[in-house]
Amino acid sequence: MANTLRAIPLSTVERLSIYLRTLRESLVEGMDFISSTEIGKRNDFTAAQVRKDLSCFGNFGIKGTGYQISELINTLETILGLDREWKVAIFGLGKLGGALACYKGLKSARFNVVAIFDVDPKKVDKTYKNIPVYHSDMLKKVVREKKIQIAIIAVPTDSAKATIQRIIDAGIKGILNFTEARVPYPDEYILKNVNLAGELESISYYLIHSDL
Amino acid sequence: MANTLRAIPLSTVERLSIYLRTLRESLVEGMDFISSTEIGKRNDFTAAQVRKDLSCFGNFGIKGTGYQISELINTLETILGLDREWKVAIFGLGKLGGALACYKGLKSARFNVVAIFDVDPKKVDKTYKNIPVYHSDMLKKVVREKKIQIAIIAVPTDSAKATIQRIIDAGIKGILNFTEARVPYPDEYILKNVNLAGELESISYYLIHSDL
Repeated sequence: MANTLRAIPLSTVERLSIYLRTLRESLVEGMDFISSTEIGKRNDFTAAQVRKDLSCFGNFGIKGTGYQISELINTLETILGLDREWKVAIFGLGKLGGALACYKGLKSARFNVVAIFDVDPKKVDKTYKNIPVYHSDMLKKVVREKKIQIAIIAVPTDSAKATIQRIIDAGIKGILNFTEARVPYPDEYILKNVNLAGELESISYYLIHSDL
Repeated sequence: MANTLRAIPLSTVERLSIYLRTLRESLVEGMDFISSTEIGKRNDFTAAQVRKDLSCFGNFGIKGTGYQISELINTLETILGLDREWKVAIFGLGKLGGALACYKGLKSARFNVVAIFDVDPKKVDKTYKNIPVYHSDMLKKVVREKKIQIAIIAVPTDSAKATIQRIIDAGIKGILNFTEARVPYPDEYILKNVNLAGELESISYYLIHSDL
């Protein structure tokens, strides 16, 4: 099973996160059941897309009735690994690193920032928003002691390649990279690049190709 | 033509940004031509996906030779609207807004932050990194005068809905939303939500469903 689920494309998994958010919103609105059409409509996907994505993981819907919301929330949380706490480290305590350390959405999604790494003597060996800040030289030791599983990269781009390589060497298998550096990584690792300029590029595309 | 291109799915457009980055990198490496296989390999897509995406916009490749890199860069820049400058405003000068205002990747991609909006009397009517900071009450006037086309939302989540509504009313048609607020928007607008916790959710998925 592990292998099959590992082979599911990133874009499908990312849509699960989106569906999960919609399910939580509809539960707050007092709904018990929701259709694939409604999930799709709220996120600009077709109903067929929603059904196809969910069917990768099991048979959840009831024909004519839709999905039982609280049940599907539990299932998706388990599939996405949100039924447990994840230990996260932020690399780089600049503006972006600081913003991410404060970001409440991480903690509520059970991504717990337990360490920050930096090289600035003015920042290390202190705490930031109650999170301990370590010198990057301490990486291997802290990762082992705190059982850190996910690294968020917010260092300056020119030091990002070296930082990511050291994180891989330290055995952190999940990496979210906010820099523009692109680094090859072993198969059993998952590295996602967040491309902020790229997010704007697709907006500019639609602005140009709109009739307005 | 505008209508056809408008109908191309966001995921395809987002991949164009990724291909463009790969093309620029390969140009720096001294390459003249690149195959769809190589573009795919560098980004974890199949060659067929790359060819299919690019074929939405024209016939670019030469069979057996691949794509002429500098030519395809120019074409993709035009398609994505990167052959012109875009005027961007950031809403909310907290940590994230400040990080985005400093983010060099935006300017180099021709997204020029020309205004920041906030409501804090300590922040408004000053400049931040040479960018003027306005009170949100000035929104309509500043948007008109500075011809702002794209808004980046980095306000606290509980004021995001109202902020986005006012931005829509002011006629800014492209919106990149970093908050967790979800707001319906008119068809001729493009609103993209950046979901930071969701980025981590797909990492946790692969960590769980890995064999390691």
